Amino acid sequence: MNGKQNKQITSRDVDFAKWYTDIVKSAHLCDYTSVKGCMILEPNGYAIWEKMKSILDAKFKELGHSNVSLPLFIPENLLKKEGELVNGFAPEVAWVTHGGSKSLEERLAVRPTSETLFSDYYASTIKSYNDLPKLYNQWCNVVRWEKETRPFLRTREFFWQEGHTVHATRIDAENETKRMMEVYRWFHHEILAIPTITGMKTEKEKFAGAEYTLTNEALMYNGVALQSGTSHFFGQKFAKAYGIKFTNKENKEDYAWQTSWGTTTRMIGGLIMVHSDDKGLVLPPRIAPRQVVIIPIGNDKDSRVMDLAEKYCEILNKNNIVTYIDKTDRTPGFKFAEAEVNGIPIRLEIGARDLENNKITFTRRDTSEKISESLDNLDILEYTKNLLDIIQNDMYERAKERRDELTYTAHSYDEMKHILDTKPGFIHADWCGNPECELKVKEIHGCKSRCISDEALIDGKCAICGEDAKYHVIWGIQY
Amino acid sequence: MNGKQNKQITSRDVDFAKWYTDIVKSAHLCDYTSVKGCMILEPNGYAIWEKMKSILDAKFKELGHSNVSLPLFIPENLLKKEGELVNGFAPEVAWVTHGGSKSLEERLAVRPTSETLFSDYYASTIKSYNDLPKLYNQWCNVVRWEKETRPFLRTREFFWQEGHTVHATRIDAENETKRMMEVYRWFHHEILAIPTITGMKTEKEKFAGAEYTLTNEALMYNGVALQSGTSHFFGQKFAKAYGIKFTNKENKEDYAWQTSWGTTTRMIGGLIMVHSDDKGLVLPPRIAPRQVVIIPIGNDKDSRVMDLAEKYCEILNKNNIVTYIDKTDRTPGFKFAEAEVNGIPIRLEIGARDLENNKITFTRRDTSEKISESLDNLDILEYTKNLLDIIQNDMYERAKERRDELTYTAHSYDEMKHILDTKPGFIHADWCGNPECELKVKEIHGCKSRCISDEALIDGKCAICGEDAKYHVIWGIQY
Repeated sequence: MNGKQNKQITSRDVDFAKWYTDIVKSAHLCDYTSVKGCMILEPNGYAIWEKMKSILDAKFKELGHSNVSLPLFIPENLLKKEGELVNGFAPEVAWVTHGGSKSLEERLAVRPTSETLFSDYYASTIKSYNDLPKLYNQWCNVVRWEKETRPFLRTREFFWQEGHTVHATRIDAENETKRMMEVYRWFHHEILAIPTITGMKTEKEKFAGAEYTLTNEALMYNGVALQSGTSHFFGQKFAKAYGIKFTNKENKEDYAWQTSWGTTTRMIGGLIMVHSDDKGLVLPPRIAPRQVVIIPIGNDKDSRVMDLAEKYCEILNKNNIVTYIDKTDRTPGFKFAEAEVNGIPIRLEIGARDLENNKITFTRRDTSEKISESLDNLDILEYTKNLLDIIQNDMYERAKERRDELTYTAHSYDEMKHILDTKPGFIHADWCGNPECELKVKEIHGCKSRCISDEALIDGKCAICGEDAKYHVIWGIQY
Repeated sequence: MNGKQNKQITSRDVDFAKWYTDIVKSAHLCDYTSVKGCMILEPNGYAIWEKMKSILDAKFKELGHSNVSLPLFIPENLLKKEGELVNGFAPEVAWVTHGGSKSLEERLAVRPTSETLFSDYYASTIKSYNDLPKLYNQWCNVVRWEKETRPFLRTREFFWQEGHTVHATRIDAENETKRMMEVYRWFHHEILAIPTITGMKTEKEKFAGAEYTLTNEALMYNGVALQSGTSHFFGQKFAKAYGIKFTNKENKEDYAWQTSWGTTTRMIGGLIMVHSDDKGLVLPPRIAPRQVVIIPIGNDKDSRVMDLAEKYCEILNKNNIVTYIDKTDRTPGFKFAEAEVNGIPIRLEIGARDLENNKITFTRRDTSEKISESLDNLDILEYTKNLLDIIQNDMYERAKERRDELTYTAHSYDEMKHILDTKPGFIHADWCGNPECELKVKEIHGCKSRCISDEALIDGKCAICGEDAKYHVIWGIQY
């Protein structure tokens, strides 16, 4: 690393894909490996995932969920019990065939998702309505043998949480499906500063094996959509395939109702593509692992500089604002560039010369704005808290503005094509419900239905075929 | 589960192995699965692992380590670069040979440990002494294709942390090896209330590829040893095999010095086998996910019962003593038995009748002692904190007493054999250093050297062959 490292970052408006990988490398989020399609999460990248985990995990627990851990491997026969699921995942399963020098009797899938194992476990442990609901979640790695990979967005191994719940009634399971989607929406809006739209997937786009899928969809700076959390209602499908029966309150045997819901390390890719700029990573304060960097300038001449730096660092850390002092012997310019590329939300310069004028300087990473503040009556904690909130809110508002700028309404296939050819984004357009019309839209740069909107029909006619419309759909090209 | 569930637990003194699996099942720590040799960590078991992780992780970070994540898979060629390591692990590696429907060009090992991947990564990222030390750790799953498995102690997939560090000098790496061993010792003594002995492994017992291995050894209630954390000094072995070179302060190229160190979900097995009893799990307060259960009795008659329960619950939780009220409509006897089998350190009964006499009752899980306390001047927080500390200390002392009771000194092979035949434990005995003597000891119930002690020689002669002794060794049968 050197002070000029952000010069190595391709401009976002010149080559978005190259810009993305430049950010990932320059901010030391992840690195490539000798293992094709897999990545190394470096300290800066893993710290973001740790923070995502801790916030979501606390929320799950607050809502009554417990963490468990199911095996990495799934015997082939068990995986095959639910036909739709296995058909959906078969092309991308990695198979273990040997243990030591011996060939296994039955080959084992490295889990691509764990509905089958959870269902098998639930079938053996749930007997009565007293055992319900079961609200379990696990944080783990999963493997899908993707051909084309891209850091965070699509890798053969990735990390996620998968919630798997069982309920005594349809309504309980449907409510769970909805409330967990609301958690994902909340997490994106309040923590990641990413405005999202939520809605139901079409039949074609829903999760293999689900009765329906709710989705949380974000729009990247370049107008490409990123699915950012899904919540599935399974009805009794898996319960019937795996035999999850229980005795209900009326003392009758019934099949249980299930849901599953998940978010992944993809969200780190979303964070980058919504907020970052040509100088490097930009992180919303609530998800930034480190929120403030203090850079002492001219401290060798003046012990007041370091004394103040240490004092502020202690006050802020004590109050859960993660702060560090860059005490290395590199130039201030180098330190600024490093803090910038790593996306530290606030840079606080304490300079010997400024102190003579009783001043210090705050610099916002998101806007590059420099704010010189007098030390008279400065409450460093309140001031920093407030500035972090302002940054968080401003980042959300800017992301929303960009999203709104790239949100369109289309009334015809030609109009959709024109938008996607020129400046893609979310396109609102009515749809008749015919999968053929969906497939026709896919011909335009692979554009798919993102979700069915709750909003009223636009003009009542399918934008693609002109027949009567059933759904107001939001369309978009996706990662 | 029912109120009589502890009746299902086999007595520890009758059949220790059966008692162990009874505890695991009754306390809902883990369950078996359709995947042979793998286990499900249920909420009670996973919560212990989460607490272990959070305490160790905070300590690692305090010492300057960062978390990272390396791939689950290791290409066969990469694994083979360090010969000793691959020979050590080859018999128990699970191999992925297919991705989707295609056979892979090179098969991939599911990581049994990650020295190879870390070394490969370090070789590509470390250039100069300025890049050192690298102090990385990862929390992950690893796979070893064991034939005989037992919950927590030996499973095909298990969880662990593996620290992998790189240093500029031999002394730095050796100091890291030692300080991390000290962390494991501290964790067992202070948090798990398990007295351990630490020392160096013999050549035969060290980690494949290490220059030497330090180990932390615990003794279970039945006198069988459990290796509970190891720390390896690699010297420059891996650096030479994987090409980890750097420019040192003298501007000369040198190979780097490495360590690795790890602890696993095995520690949960150790916790059970050191502390638990015939009534179920017993957990030291500092590792118990839930520390206090409040059981209201006769609350339907008296709102004062529930008011006091809620008040205490709030005070304790606010002060980080995890407390819950059992509000279910089951009988007190049922609730007592459940709290007992789950190992909640303190049970607090608040009864309508007791309240008339201004009294409440604390019951210690570890001793079953009931303590009736007057509410006059009772500071619930101070009282509970103090009682938890007493329990923690008493549990350590009892474990130490048992360990000392089962610690012997032997002067001959026959003496060793007699001890191991009758009441096994840690045996202190001198050794000449000849591996043949080690192998001869192994003939007695598979007894191995646990570690080389720092203590002086006992009588200067090898207990096995009678030749001059080089080492004071501690021996024992192990899991």
